[in-house]
Amino acid sequence: MPRFQADEIRALEVSILRHLGASQEHAELVVDMLIEASLVGHDSHGVHYITRYADRIKRGIIDKKAIPEITKETVGTAIVDGHWGFGQVTAKRAMEVAIEKAGRVGVGAVGCIHCNHIGRLGAYTSMAAEKGMVGLMVVNVVHPTVQPFGGASRVLGSNPISVAAPAGNSNPFLLDFATSAVAEGKIGWAAMKGEKIPMGWIVDHEGHDTNDPLDFSLPNGSVDESEGSGRMLSFGGRDSHKAYALSLLMEVLAGILPGAGSTADKDHHLYENGVLAIVLNIQILTGLGEFAQRMDSLIQRVHKEPVRAAFQYHHIQVPGEFETANHEKRLKEGIDIPETPWKQILQLAEELGIDHDFGPLRS
Amino acid sequence: MPRFQADEIRALEVSILRHLGASQEHAELVVDMLIEASLVGHDSHGVHYITRYADRIKRGIIDKKAIPEITKETVGTAIVDGHWGFGQVTAKRAMEVAIEKAGRVGVGAVGCIHCNHIGRLGAYTSMAAEKGMVGLMVVNVVHPTVQPFGGASRVLGSNPISVAAPAGNSNPFLLDFATSAVAEGKIGWAAMKGEKIPMGWIVDHEGHDTNDPLDFSLPNGSVDESEGSGRMLSFGGRDSHKAYALSLLMEVLAGILPGAGSTADKDHHLYENGVLAIVLNIQILTGLGEFAQRMDSLIQRVHKEPVRAAFQYHHIQVPGEFETANHEKRLKEGIDIPETPWKQILQLAEELGIDHDFGPLRS
Repeated sequence: MPRFQADEIRALEVSILRHLGASQEHAELVVDMLIEASLVGHDSHGVHYITRYADRIKRGIIDKKAIPEITKETVGTAIVDGHWGFGQVTAKRAMEVAIEKAGRVGVGAVGCIHCNHIGRLGAYTSMAAEKGMVGLMVVNVVHPTVQPFGGASRVLGSNPISVAAPAGNSNPFLLDFATSAVAEGKIGWAAMKGEKIPMGWIVDHEGHDTNDPLDFSLPNGSVDESEGSGRMLSFGGRDSHKAYALSLLMEVLAGILPGAGSTADKDHHLYENGVLAIVLNIQILTGLGEFAQRMDSLIQRVHKEPVRAAFQYHHIQVPGEFETANHEKRLKEGIDIPETPWKQILQLAEELGIDHDFGPLRS
Repeated sequence: MPRFQADEIRALEVSILRHLGASQEHAELVVDMLIEASLVGHDSHGVHYITRYADRIKRGIIDKKAIPEITKETVGTAIVDGHWGFGQVTAKRAMEVAIEKAGRVGVGAVGCIHCNHIGRLGAYTSMAAEKGMVGLMVVNVVHPTVQPFGGASRVLGSNPISVAAPAGNSNPFLLDFATSAVAEGKIGWAAMKGEKIPMGWIVDHEGHDTNDPLDFSLPNGSVDESEGSGRMLSFGGRDSHKAYALSLLMEVLAGILPGAGSTADKDHHLYENGVLAIVLNIQILTGLGEFAQRMDSLIQRVHKEPVRAAFQYHHIQVPGEFETANHEKRLKEGIDIPETPWKQILQLAEELGIDHDFGPLRS
């Protein structure tokens, strides 16, 4: 499988977005987010997404020039209208505004409308943690792929949640996951690599368990929209009414509350991400020193507990350790990209007439 | 099994708390919350809890006279010190303050310290929904009963979450559940009734699946603290790293952020509930009319989707329907209380010298 250093992909992908008409600032922001997702191990949201964004720019779904705008505001809340620009630009602005408000009044809640795909949520919630605050973000993904508890049809999106919080000497806490069994892109990623997936992620169109990603995705990694294709399950599997309830909650919090709409609303665009960001100011609520110390105590306690014989790790994991470990490793060793998406990226670069150093030997 | 109308239990239980020294206002509040929990079908948090509270009052864990106090405050946030009074009194005050703040600045975030067991979270979040707001509450339960993902020991509490939101013509949305497979009390409830529990709720002390509640609870419904007792699983089962992450999140949000502390902190009292309430003002964020209409659309869509052949309901459920259906039924038909807790309640009443109409025929 082709492997690249983050920096060489960055240059190529920034160039792609620049050729498509994005500003240098926006191009760098979007590409940095994709690279970060690949580095931390969430390939589903990583560098290969550039071809999808390019396609959406060409089709007018992403307005490459749009600047987000605050359309409603109080000292504690705001609505950011993304004007269909890059989702990353909109969501980053929303998180910045929420951090600013929490800085002043202890809490900030900011929703987004007209927002495209924002990528990995942890990138935004970590912005708050880096400022010594707790950051929460929820998203409703309009594109329905997940069957509800007791159901037999695609109703809900993968509807993710992320919460980040700083610690003292320990790795920061970073919860970041889809309320579906996995992010949709992880099935597509397996399809692109020609690999099987674990049982429990999807069912086929008749509702039977399957480990074949092609029951859900096309070989190019996108979702199979044809009649005979399968459905994702909520995390915890088909009997997990609680994960289903959380998925539906994201429709309420991220979709309906900011005014973006839910999966049931026709004005809610197929590629739209409804977004709600909530930031809580640790210093105002309790005090940063005490918070950091208690976080370290909790994490140390969890690390000391016994693990089951068959467990894959030496100690019980705290959310965020997966990402940190991957980041260290991949920054050194590089990012793997399967043949299919890599060819798509090179093809796009060639279409745009971009010079690059990736000769046939590298691809 | 003994069955009673809500009103007759209310009078008896209010009298019990009055005899134990609680004010009329606090006694009514606590008992109303317990009765409401029984009515909506969450017996685990229902009327039998009165005997536990009586025990905690006698042992000085609950200060029956304490009045909660705001110790820190901004326009958007507050910390409510419960001074170890009734948890219900503290949590209700916290939610009232959060609603008031959200009314003014769009969002309110209020944490509790020195707070006893607050009971069913949905009672508080529904207060916000009734005011046309979205109410969220999370709790960290110090008492460790749940094994972490990959673990083999009791580390985390049942750490529940609730979110309530109003709808238009539909039943209000009410998500209210433990991040453990079930609320601890549901296992105790089965133990008291002498019934088996579904597989997947607990494992025995060696980590094997079991459907015997006595592997976790004592016959009187309380948690078995002895060496050879089992552990609860997170919802979604032993491989559900996402539910485990949510459980740990409640330690951060509800325990550490308000200053109550986590399961790892020695100053965090065994019966303490760390609490965080967040209220979001719908009218300020998007507009109540639009919100209600979109909620109805979402709920109607979910109700129209096909159900699996073996599904126990005629339509896919929206969180809150379970509670509403039970409430209607039990308000008419009465509340069932198993022999064991009912005898405990009558014994308590007799100890306190309370006259009651419940003759031997009724018990």
